[in-house]
Amino acid sequence: MLRNYQGMRTLVTGGLGFIGSNLTIRLAELGARVTVIDSSVPGCGADEANLKPVRDSVTVLHRDIADTSALENHIRTADLVFNMAGEVSHTHSMKWPRRDAELNAVAQLRFLEGCARLHPGLRIVYAGTRQVYGRPRYLPVDENHPFCPVDFNGIHKGLAIQYHLLYAQLGKLDAVVLNLTNVYGPRMALWEPCQGFLGVFLRRMLQRQQLQIFGDGSQLRDPLYVDDAVDAFLMAGAAPQLPSRLYNLGGPEALSLQQIAETCSRLAGGPAPALRPFPPDHKQIDIGSYRADWTRIRTELGWQPRTHFTEGISRALLFYQAEPRYRLRLDDPGPTCGVRDELQDPLNLRRAAS
Amino acid sequence: MLRNYQGMRTLVTGGLGFIGSNLTIRLAELGARVTVIDSSVPGCGADEANLKPVRDSVTVLHRDIADTSALENHIRTADLVFNMAGEVSHTHSMKWPRRDAELNAVAQLRFLEGCARLHPGLRIVYAGTRQVYGRPRYLPVDENHPFCPVDFNGIHKGLAIQYHLLYAQLGKLDAVVLNLTNVYGPRMALWEPCQGFLGVFLRRMLQRQQLQIFGDGSQLRDPLYVDDAVDAFLMAGAAPQLPSRLYNLGGPEALSLQQIAETCSRLAGGPAPALRPFPPDHKQIDIGSYRADWTRIRTELGWQPRTHFTEGISRALLFYQAEPRYRLRLDDPGPTCGVRDELQDPLNLRRAAS
Repeated sequence: MLRNYQGMRTLVTGGLGFIGSNLTIRLAELGARVTVIDSSVPGCGADEANLKPVRDSVTVLHRDIADTSALENHIRTADLVFNMAGEVSHTHSMKWPRRDAELNAVAQLRFLEGCARLHPGLRIVYAGTRQVYGRPRYLPVDENHPFCPVDFNGIHKGLAIQYHLLYAQLGKLDAVVLNLTNVYGPRMALWEPCQGFLGVFLRRMLQRQQLQIFGDGSQLRDPLYVDDAVDAFLMAGAAPQLPSRLYNLGGPEALSLQQIAETCSRLAGGPAPALRPFPPDHKQIDIGSYRADWTRIRTELGWQPRTHFTEGISRALLFYQAEPRYRLRLDDPGPTCGVRDELQDPLNLRRAAS
Repeated sequence: MLRNYQGMRTLVTGGLGFIGSNLTIRLAELGARVTVIDSSVPGCGADEANLKPVRDSVTVLHRDIADTSALENHIRTADLVFNMAGEVSHTHSMKWPRRDAELNAVAQLRFLEGCARLHPGLRIVYAGTRQVYGRPRYLPVDENHPFCPVDFNGIHKGLAIQYHLLYAQLGKLDAVVLNLTNVYGPRMALWEPCQGFLGVFLRRMLQRQQLQIFGDGSQLRDPLYVDDAVDAFLMAGAAPQLPSRLYNLGGPEALSLQQIAETCSRLAGGPAPALRPFPPDHKQIDIGSYRADWTRIRTELGWQPRTHFTEGISRALLFYQAEPRYRLRLDDPGPTCGVRDELQDPLNLRRAAS
């Protein structure tokens, strides 16, 4: 099925970011004609260097996805959209909820409005998140689990998911949502302090610092290697028909944070991990244990995760060790989570309202 | 408990609208010092004449709730906020989703941010809606029913509810949400074509036109008389402690649309109601039957609905017949649902984004 991508005109929003760039590289390798749309909002992980392997075969537009008038021709002529743009940090969202609303919700609504107007029926594969389920009421978490997010990022990603589902239900767009769990691998923005615990672990592994676990280490996670996530996006993009509009992705195994940290420490050759009490800002939005039920996407689209954590984290570590730019950037991290005060209101809503 | 309102400084957002004005009048009668905040967004039902009975004892600020800097002193000194501002029309939201997002979600987030900053711990009683539950998975619908809205209005009201619940959970505001079902009574904006079927029924009753029912008339609704809804807001505002943060309100009985229309037709002395096929724009967002389970608020706060439909609709009809302004306005309805093109983007997001 993936050979369908030969010559296919695909748009990748957020294509300079972690998952978006890995997807873009795969698409280019499959012979697709890829256009990346990325406005490089500070703090969201965009990095031009991520596309180094395909620099000559991919077009990059430095545009906000909300500005669909500037994207008109691209949207009209696209065969397929992978909608990966967004802010992923939960802690950012708690500090700057309105910024998160703009980036994850209002911009998505504008983008979908534009796509529905310019190209009715266009297929859009959207990167959702398990965070919308909040603290799981049961494990593993399937797609019928209620949306009960515990932070602004989860709330706004949940809103964007609902937008996609509504446009699909109204027959205006052929939208489908993949809810991601902790994705890890090459091209994460390790210099950003607020990009999830696996990014923090990888950074500390590279710097040979002790890993720290918040809480007692018993919480479960099902880390998903980025190549497996990319496979799921490609399969959802290429499926002739979509039996469902929402699919959960998960890793091949559920591991405790203690197990994950021990594996990482052994690979990095560093000291054993330490348990630490939860910092208050993390405790507030912690979700406890999580494991996805990915039966639906396996049954309906034939996807399953293939990369076990020990293999995946080793490959990631090898990637980062071979890339000097990570060492340089880690030595000089940006300002608070990469977001400066003047950038908290990217659409200048305050001015518009006053 | 309600005698606590004597001298209490209360803010009522959306206090020129249907439920907000009924609440404001009751508060003034109870001796509260009421300040109404209402920017009279076209299409949302605001009407200065609604506050005629208390014109001399209530302060009205013509302000957007999002503009909290202009409301700073009022928020700092308030004892209590009734947060009734919003757009209620589902059909408006489907035509202008971004307008609905601004009015129901972004403005609410700004308002809550401002309240949490200026007056930590302030109690805010928010007017939610049963529309967030979407097509019920079971009846009666309790507060554990998942949020599965089927239109933009339900999505954005659901978002505003989540904002309130999150601020409460974080301990920043003493917020509580009451999810309303079809509320009816005096002071509805009957001249607006998109304010719900009971508004349409009342308009046609006043004009002695035949009532029309979409579908086969078997769908259930549990209409709630506005005085009963106001009682619930007053009780939630005055409760010393709030055992829960989300309460469903409902009427005392579930009636089919056919039963409701027949009662209305008999009272108005008009012809028997007619069944009509659903117009496509209504069918898309129809939710089937609904009946609220209001056990939680009865048990925890002692509220229950008292006004049966026949009595409530009679009182409403008598109110409208005695008010010549309704007859005048009904003879000259506004433009499409009261919303002109230039008003669809009230915060001028398009200019800000370009």
